[in-house]
Amino acid sequence: MQFADRLAAAVKKTDSITCVGLDPRKKQLPASIQNAVSEDTPQQWAAAYQTFCCEIIDVVRDLVPCVKPQAAFFEALGPHGMVALGNVIRHAQESGLLVITDGKRNDIGSTATAYADAYLGKSSPWGSDSLTVSPYLGRDSLEPFAEVCDQREAGVFVLVKTSNPGGGLFQDRQTEGQTLYRSVAALVHELNETRVGTSGFGPIGAVVGATYPEQLSELRQAMPTSWILIPGFGAQGGSAENVLMGLDSDGLGAIVNNSRNLIFAHAREEFRDRFTDTQWQNAVESATREMNDQLRR
Amino acid sequence: MQFADRLAAAVKKTDSITCVGLDPRKKQLPASIQNAVSEDTPQQWAAAYQTFCCEIIDVVRDLVPCVKPQAAFFEALGPHGMVALGNVIRHAQESGLLVITDGKRNDIGSTATAYADAYLGKSSPWGSDSLTVSPYLGRDSLEPFAEVCDQREAGVFVLVKTSNPGGGLFQDRQTEGQTLYRSVAALVHELNETRVGTSGFGPIGAVVGATYPEQLSELRQAMPTSWILIPGFGAQGGSAENVLMGLDSDGLGAIVNNSRNLIFAHAREEFRDRFTDTQWQNAVESATREMNDQLRR
Repeated sequence: MQFADRLAAAVKKTDSITCVGLDPRKKQLPASIQNAVSEDTPQQWAAAYQTFCCEIIDVVRDLVPCVKPQAAFFEALGPHGMVALGNVIRHAQESGLLVITDGKRNDIGSTATAYADAYLGKSSPWGSDSLTVSPYLGRDSLEPFAEVCDQREAGVFVLVKTSNPGGGLFQDRQTEGQTLYRSVAALVHELNETRVGTSGFGPIGAVVGATYPEQLSELRQAMPTSWILIPGFGAQGGSAENVLMGLDSDGLGAIVNNSRNLIFAHAREEFRDRFTDTQWQNAVESATREMNDQLRR
Repeated sequence: MQFADRLAAAVKKTDSITCVGLDPRKKQLPASIQNAVSEDTPQQWAAAYQTFCCEIIDVVRDLVPCVKPQAAFFEALGPHGMVALGNVIRHAQESGLLVITDGKRNDIGSTATAYADAYLGKSSPWGSDSLTVSPYLGRDSLEPFAEVCDQREAGVFVLVKTSNPGGGLFQDRQTEGQTLYRSVAALVHELNETRVGTSGFGPIGAVVGATYPEQLSELRQAMPTSWILIPGFGAQGGSAENVLMGLDSDGLGAIVNNSRNLIFAHAREEFRDRFTDTQWQNAVESATREMNDQLRR
């Protein structure tokens, strides 16, 4: 079954559009995980990241449709970190979760194909279902990903409108009568519309930040068959009301990522009294259920 | 010494502006390297890539200022490939070459910092001197790289005008009275001009394809203190005459990448008669010397 249809099925099965962002950071790990690091080496931190992310996966596996490991934090530990990333992806797959690797990769032609071969599909070396990709290199850098999506029942999420304050510098530029992000959205739609599956969605999705609700609504219309991955919910300021702009009338078509507020829930003021440090997994569970509830309204 | 100054010194010492692109691809490896792969596993191919790239480094170490490993081809082998990438970077460093990791990375804020921490500086987990980065996420995604460049005497090359046929789709758009690539160049120049070292260059460089000589000339003027990394020479069609547009009046300010024509020189028609397969390293050396000569004219 193609990625877009599997994502639709997973959203329905879990009754959740939450994507749990796996963004491990040394200083924010629960004390019990940090304490297991006896020497400050990349190898030990990589093991800590792997333990932390795999335990989160065990907690959320039946609560959400997907997880999104952020490659950068694993890469920041060097090769050891990348080995851990591979193990985290495999554990998520074995737990029945869809995996979106957040790598924001891209390159020209045959090098784009190498990235697609690397990350797309359960049988690929990294084994993820989907990858975030950057559009700056144009159509011929996105087509290789679309082709590999077809071959491997995988998906991509193209950066369209990012959640950061400065994202508009280039993305909001007026060009040929519309914004640049809207031009990117038009390309996403064009690549996607010939690939739509039984769910009504296709494999070429888009990243649109929760911090820009008007644009989210505009882009929902511009890419009616694309899944939208919405970062920026919670810690970055996007509200539940904002992100609902990304859904279609059936409540499908968008997944909402949250990283910090879920995976580091043990450190949130409202959870500190309820859970001890060794109960950090319970804090993750509560925060995930709470986010699901917010988004079900 | 900061990266831009070290690059200037290395160019002068070697009298070369050639950058050897380390883009290993299974089917194009010399027969002797392919034959050492007894089982078709990522682990064995990763070992083959490492051997191949390290032998190339041994050949070119005194002939060129820098090498550019392409992360995608290593990532395509999964975690084993990334371990090989780390070893290749380390071997290049130990051989006295500057290393530009071609990863075209970027993300927002603190995640951009994670990529910078990962790749920039000899003491970083990957240990490269420089990284290629994508500009689509705007100024606040580039500033973290600039800050880490300051701390670690490292550099970045921001994608400005890429060498692929479709690169213009977004990059050539007219916006606010100029092309988008020119707006990106203005940001590169702005971030760089306060960081210029004794060589007259700073750490924030640009990628500009050899396939667009007019734009190369325009961008040389627009970013007078930035090193320009020029891909697309040779196999992609850029000529020596084209790339000289990227140099300043002292013959500095640009490095020219070539991958296939150098590292797979053994397969080029004009070399096949001169070298047997087991002499593929000699073919690499001849091709590198030939490229140096072409660019010295």
